Amino acid sequence: MKIDNVDFFYLAMPKITTDADGSQDALLVRVQAGSHVGWGECEASPLACIASYVCPMSHGACRPVAESVLGQPLNDPSDIARIRAAVQFNSMDLLQAAHTFSGIEIALWDALGKRLGEPVYRLLGYKSDAPKLAYASQLFGNTPAETEAKAKAAREAGFRAVKFGWVNYGRGSVADDAAHIEAARAGMGSEAEVLIDAGQIFAQDVEAAAKRLPALERFGVLWLEEPFLADALAAYGALADRSRKVGMAGGEGCHSAPMALNLIDFGKVGFIQIDAGRIGGLGPAKEVADHAVAKGVTFVNHTFTSHLALSASIQPYAGLADHRIAEYPFAPSALARDLTVNHIMPDKDGMIRLPDGPGLAMTVNTAALRPYLKDVEIAVAGRTLFRSSALPV
Amino acid sequence: MKIDNVDFFYLAMPKITTDADGSQDALLVRVQAGSHVGWGECEASPLACIASYVCPMSHGACRPVAESVLGQPLNDPSDIARIRAAVQFNSMDLLQAAHTFSGIEIALWDALGKRLGEPVYRLLGYKSDAPKLAYASQLFGNTPAETEAKAKAAREAGFRAVKFGWVNYGRGSVADDAAHIEAARAGMGSEAEVLIDAGQIFAQDVEAAAKRLPALERFGVLWLEEPFLADALAAYGALADRSRKVGMAGGEGCHSAPMALNLIDFGKVGFIQIDAGRIGGLGPAKEVADHAVAKGVTFVNHTFTSHLALSASIQPYAGLADHRIAEYPFAPSALARDLTVNHIMPDKDGMIRLPDGPGLAMTVNTAALRPYLKDVEIAVAGRTLFRSSALPV
Repeated sequence: MKIDNVDFFYLAMPKITTDADGSQDALLVRVQAGSHVGWGECEASPLACIASYVCPMSHGACRPVAESVLGQPLNDPSDIARIRAAVQFNSMDLLQAAHTFSGIEIALWDALGKRLGEPVYRLLGYKSDAPKLAYASQLFGNTPAETEAKAKAAREAGFRAVKFGWVNYGRGSVADDAAHIEAARAGMGSEAEVLIDAGQIFAQDVEAAAKRLPALERFGVLWLEEPFLADALAAYGALADRSRKVGMAGGEGCHSAPMALNLIDFGKVGFIQIDAGRIGGLGPAKEVADHAVAKGVTFVNHTFTSHLALSASIQPYAGLADHRIAEYPFAPSALARDLTVNHIMPDKDGMIRLPDGPGLAMTVNTAALRPYLKDVEIAVAGRTLFRSSALPV
Repeated sequence: MKIDNVDFFYLAMPKITTDADGSQDALLVRVQAGSHVGWGECEASPLACIASYVCPMSHGACRPVAESVLGQPLNDPSDIARIRAAVQFNSMDLLQAAHTFSGIEIALWDALGKRLGEPVYRLLGYKSDAPKLAYASQLFGNTPAETEAKAKAAREAGFRAVKFGWVNYGRGSVADDAAHIEAARAGMGSEAEVLIDAGQIFAQDVEAAAKRLPALERFGVLWLEEPFLADALAAYGALADRSRKVGMAGGEGCHSAPMALNLIDFGKVGFIQIDAGRIGGLGPAKEVADHAVAKGVTFVNHTFTSHLALSASIQPYAGLADHRIAEYPFAPSALARDLTVNHIMPDKDGMIRLPDGPGLAMTVNTAALRPYLKDVEIAVAGRTLFRSSALPV
């Protein structure tokens, strides 16, 4: 079969706030190839991604993403690798291209899996999928008491691991931050895994981040995530050298496999967190997982949005039983929940499994998404380059 | 003064080809602040950049670039640094933001320089500008004879350094490539500097690139540029370790200062090439120049387009007399030539100096640009987010 059509659906909640909640909008991608349909999602700015798909060519190394995708054959995984290499070269100078292609690439695997009757993780080379310990990923409370209440709620919902991030962490005093860590541990109990996400707040300031290490150690935090800018490798490495017990985690900002490999090789992270909706899809994510295995680093998905994105982001390390922890969006928006008919639910031990079935094995709930759809129209020099399609019935 | 207005002008040649000639279109940026006007240029996809400036917010860390810029005070260099930090944080998940902001940031320095009556390089901390040896930057010929003729033309035009890149280099045999290097050296004579740009053709294949080193050494090539993907640090470092005489050069793909620092610290490049129109502007470029000085690496501008971009990209290392070589677009498009009234011309020794005057000291030729202007219109949910302004009379 060949790639006949690629559609983008820009979905958004009625009101978007400045909260660091990435589930407030979504860019859903549908690929049609012969009689098969695949779905994917870009974890990125919908409008910027759509513009990168349709933009006029600037020169040979700055072409729209569409040019490397439409009409290409899609019969086995090597076709996806070839398309990815074409995007990489033809859109070298189009920075947004990696985010745009991510959702397309995921949809290509979904369509191919459906055609071949195989789950995506098998096409990626795994024989089976291993259960993952879901960690309830959420934002810090505004006060330690709120953080503790959120931790308790996660524990009561059956989670045995929790992550708190963003909000005021790193913005106030070291003692303020420590109080939130203590609250998170108190709420979760002594057995659970507690993870902390600094949301790049320290930019490149190693000293500021290092001052937070004692509290993280005292309350047995497994990792400190994104203390620095996504590519501040020297800062990552310096903090890793100074941390005795708490691992460094990062990688959600990676928009290529080499960028993630750099975080492992030079940034010395212990946990590499990959968002398949940003790194360019499942192929590059699997490359990172292979490298993580080789280097003794733990691969983790990055997912804060829908269960379509969750299924996609787990596939690249589905078969790695020792890479056991998985990010699970604990309080996503109504849009993110409504995006799929089926959902990935933790069992009584807080473990999750991929759904059973070909492709990503998720059913997009197109009827439920209609109220969230935003029309987009882009014209250059009087020619319409993009006009939103209707969601299928 | 404060930033009252930011306008984008999408300019393009009537016909865009797949040649690796980045001067075929341009995204010109005008900033109005009080009674001052500054101009800059994004070396990037115009449509994707415009979309990133106006896109609806996705969440707190994925906001449109406009939100961190419009209305901000602009009275001294620290204001530009503050705006840059705001874009970095507020648009963390908007990949294209760095390219979009680059042209704005350059225009902010231009406006501020005009207000303060100072050339930008003085605002960046240099007392004076040093002359640079202009290298004629052009694409390889299709045959060695064409490459030799191009080299002769550059020499006859007074250039004492030349760079050839792209086209068939790395696509055919090692002997084919060597014939082009020999031709370039023959055309330029034994005294001139010859530089070679592989245009990322080897992706991450260190062996393929290493096979080209003997010919580069034999014909006294100063540097091999971009053998690999922009962030393939391990490959860069491995090839640098294997090259005895030819330096590695790279960096035009850097869209942040840390990314360029990584190329120096971990990729072991000898020449760090920064495009101010991609890295986020002159502030981050100056940070890279400072790091290059500290690490004994040579800073070089990356410029293949207009003389507005050329002036901008030289400012960050204008005062570094020992960093003596500068990229000079040898055969830019008519659009790139027409973009400014004044031009930076090599003297009889092939040396260039920055123009004298406040800001970037370049006069944009708005009247000449009118035929190149492309109207853009972007609407989301029925609301027009962007409609092109007319070029000023």
